[in-house]
Amino acid sequence: MDFTELKDIEQKVEEREDFSGEKVRPLGVFFPKDEDEVVRIVRFAKKNRLPIIPWGQGTSLTGAVSCDKNCILVDLSKMNKILEINDIDWYVRVQPGIKLIDLFEELEKKGFMLPPDPASFFLCSVGGAVAESSGGMKGVRYGSFREWVLSLRVVLPNGEVIKVGEPLRKNRAGYDLVHLFVGSEGTLGIVTEIWLRIIPIPKRKMVMIAAMLKDFESAGEVIVGLRKNKILPELSEYVDADVVKALNKHLSANLKETEGGMLLISIEEDSVDDVLKVLEGKTVDIKIAEGEEAEKLYSLRSQAAIAVKAESNKVFYAEDIVVPVSKLPEAIRRLREIGEKYNTKFYVISHIGDGNLHPNIIIEDKVARENAFEEIARMAIELGGSVSGEHGIGVQKAKLMAEQIVKHNGVSVLDLMYHIKKLIDPDDIMNPDKYVELAYKFLTSRG
Amino acid sequence: MDFTELKDIEQKVEEREDFSGEKVRPLGVFFPKDEDEVVRIVRFAKKNRLPIIPWGQGTSLTGAVSCDKNCILVDLSKMNKILEINDIDWYVRVQPGIKLIDLFEELEKKGFMLPPDPASFFLCSVGGAVAESSGGMKGVRYGSFREWVLSLRVVLPNGEVIKVGEPLRKNRAGYDLVHLFVGSEGTLGIVTEIWLRIIPIPKRKMVMIAAMLKDFESAGEVIVGLRKNKILPELSEYVDADVVKALNKHLSANLKETEGGMLLISIEEDSVDDVLKVLEGKTVDIKIAEGEEAEKLYSLRSQAAIAVKAESNKVFYAEDIVVPVSKLPEAIRRLREIGEKYNTKFYVISHIGDGNLHPNIIIEDKVARENAFEEIARMAIELGGSVSGEHGIGVQKAKLMAEQIVKHNGVSVLDLMYHIKKLIDPDDIMNPDKYVELAYKFLTSRG
Repeated sequence: MDFTELKDIEQKVEEREDFSGEKVRPLGVFFPKDEDEVVRIVRFAKKNRLPIIPWGQGTSLTGAVSCDKNCILVDLSKMNKILEINDIDWYVRVQPGIKLIDLFEELEKKGFMLPPDPASFFLCSVGGAVAESSGGMKGVRYGSFREWVLSLRVVLPNGEVIKVGEPLRKNRAGYDLVHLFVGSEGTLGIVTEIWLRIIPIPKRKMVMIAAMLKDFESAGEVIVGLRKNKILPELSEYVDADVVKALNKHLSANLKETEGGMLLISIEEDSVDDVLKVLEGKTVDIKIAEGEEAEKLYSLRSQAAIAVKAESNKVFYAEDIVVPVSKLPEAIRRLREIGEKYNTKFYVISHIGDGNLHPNIIIEDKVARENAFEEIARMAIELGGSVSGEHGIGVQKAKLMAEQIVKHNGVSVLDLMYHIKKLIDPDDIMNPDKYVELAYKFLTSRG
Repeated sequence: MDFTELKDIEQKVEEREDFSGEKVRPLGVFFPKDEDEVVRIVRFAKKNRLPIIPWGQGTSLTGAVSCDKNCILVDLSKMNKILEINDIDWYVRVQPGIKLIDLFEELEKKGFMLPPDPASFFLCSVGGAVAESSGGMKGVRYGSFREWVLSLRVVLPNGEVIKVGEPLRKNRAGYDLVHLFVGSEGTLGIVTEIWLRIIPIPKRKMVMIAAMLKDFESAGEVIVGLRKNKILPELSEYVDADVVKALNKHLSANLKETEGGMLLISIEEDSVDDVLKVLEGKTVDIKIAEGEEAEKLYSLRSQAAIAVKAESNKVFYAEDIVVPVSKLPEAIRRLREIGEKYNTKFYVISHIGDGNLHPNIIIEDKVARENAFEEIARMAIELGGSVSGEHGIGVQKAKLMAEQIVKHNGVSVLDLMYHIKKLIDPDDIMNPDKYVELAYKFLTSRG
């Protein structure tokens, strides 16, 4: 491919790999410094019918940014500025390439927070988090990115620049296109500017309860108990007994090892007693932590996947199912059964408070690993849940997504999604052959 | 029109009028009792290329459900059941015809709330509130309906039934179509079932502060002051001096009349002092109310529009602009200037905490009334705001919406919205000639 026309834009040739292990072998990697350069790259790609992959930090866990040879990568890491922190209108305006951790730090200095905190926050870009509608530990109270994006500037696949939404919490001027682009996994355009809602850091004193559970059944039962008692923690995370062991082994966590693993609950100080009541009879040990000690527990939890990876010998699939909270006890029981069937343990890490479970599959054999991966996702579908809560679909979950939509939503829903993609990207150059498009292909190919 | 095919479905012939005064003269009004009957009506309409207007309670303030002769009305008032209140998964599933007040009452009995509380809550249907993404007084903290809808069953214009979204807070299975249908004003399909997120009624004691302001400039300044001090009330509402007078006159409110009108702020008890500090020097009188007295103030505020209507001799246009909170002082000043120009007062009622202002225009002369209406909306556009925060667009604001989108978003955004409408409703039968379609016509007709 002759890139002469784009020669003044920073570029290089290199191979990459995303966090799901999918290979990325583009014809070229471009590093636009501003929106104009993005527009020029997109126009060039359109003219040459060349697939474009928008790239943040490559932390996708589902192959959302993979490509084999015939594509160019648009690496947005040079567009990494905070353009405005508005302390009256309570929004922040950023470029997509900024790392989430850098944004968090600047917001914190001014007393604000952007609640969604995906485990990869210290690495991932804000653009990537918007493209995936990433979640995190505080999702139980604050939801995922889709609840925080107000407005986006987007370079469409035809090279036109639009702004969807307004940096206003209320705006009824037309169909809501913001939410169409949030979670679109880079398949509808390249985001060049993002307005996110921010809130003041809450002033109430929070307490972290670390409950070491008696048995694995307790985890789901406690969450159901919290819901029945109308208790909404800021964070309610669960790691199973094997993850606790891995944390002790690889990160010197010094956590008490019990049959049931660890439930972490962060809540306002004056609600601690209510939580303890729900925990009654379910625990071997309870620690109530504040300040630095609480931070350490939060940090251990956010590194849980690293500890599991250290156990895995590189054969690691991170699942990301959601089940209705009321189905958590059943889901956890069935996870164990599936594990027994495959003669493995799933190292469950989870945002259990909102029903979002990450069983981590470290089966050596690839076929068995994929089978277990699919079986778990199908269990979620059967329980009225979803095959993805926050990691997205990419190439790895397109078939399962098609199954979910057919079972829960109706074939026409996938058809509609596909035609929206075609409407916005008629030449099919924007991150093609993944996600909605790929799911649609699975559906139509099976006739 | 020969309706023999639908003769077993309850129907009658009658004329109606919505709350904006737009006339509705359908060929027939149908009262489906279930989704199957909705499907049959839609198929009939498709076959006969007959426009369909979905009708909740007709409380639209922008002519969103108007029609002149060649249409049928689908009145959803018989589909008014609560199908499920799930106290573990924290959602409620309802049919669209249920009145919001009936839903509120059932939820309250079980200790839950659905926060958006449009002033018409005692009348409007939930389906209508979803179609308009209605807001209300608690929007400043909890947002409008779009933040609370999880999933919808929809009869598409081709008669197919789909479900968009999942009754899960986190779900990444495909493009977000839920938000496309929320706020679509009945132009994309007929909603037959709605899953809404609910939360426990907060336990903390709330206090209502009624601040009678010194002068009209103070209202905006206080809100900016609250934001600068990172205070987020549950409710912050403003009615100007003329509305206070109208409340005293027509509803025996017995409120102190001051130059500046009344600001109502509801907040947790332990934040009252912080609010009082911001109010310092801005008030003539402050009342701090709890319990029944607080309820009475809330109720007076929710009836403010009724008091203004009583003043208006039926020439009442309710505006619904949003401005960035930081621009509130300027917007309020300019509103007064526009009022002086038209030799009138605007009886401003407002969800001032989120920048959503309802100046009420009661100018006798229709042309002058419309001019003032447009001038106010254009001021909002100029300040970076929106022509509608919660009343929607319908027929009355389509031209202004087109102006906003052209100025803020780019022509292609309206183009994209229009083509999504065409994609879903190719025969153009679903509540046609309004909203996005009408805005698009304004845009293309001016060349």
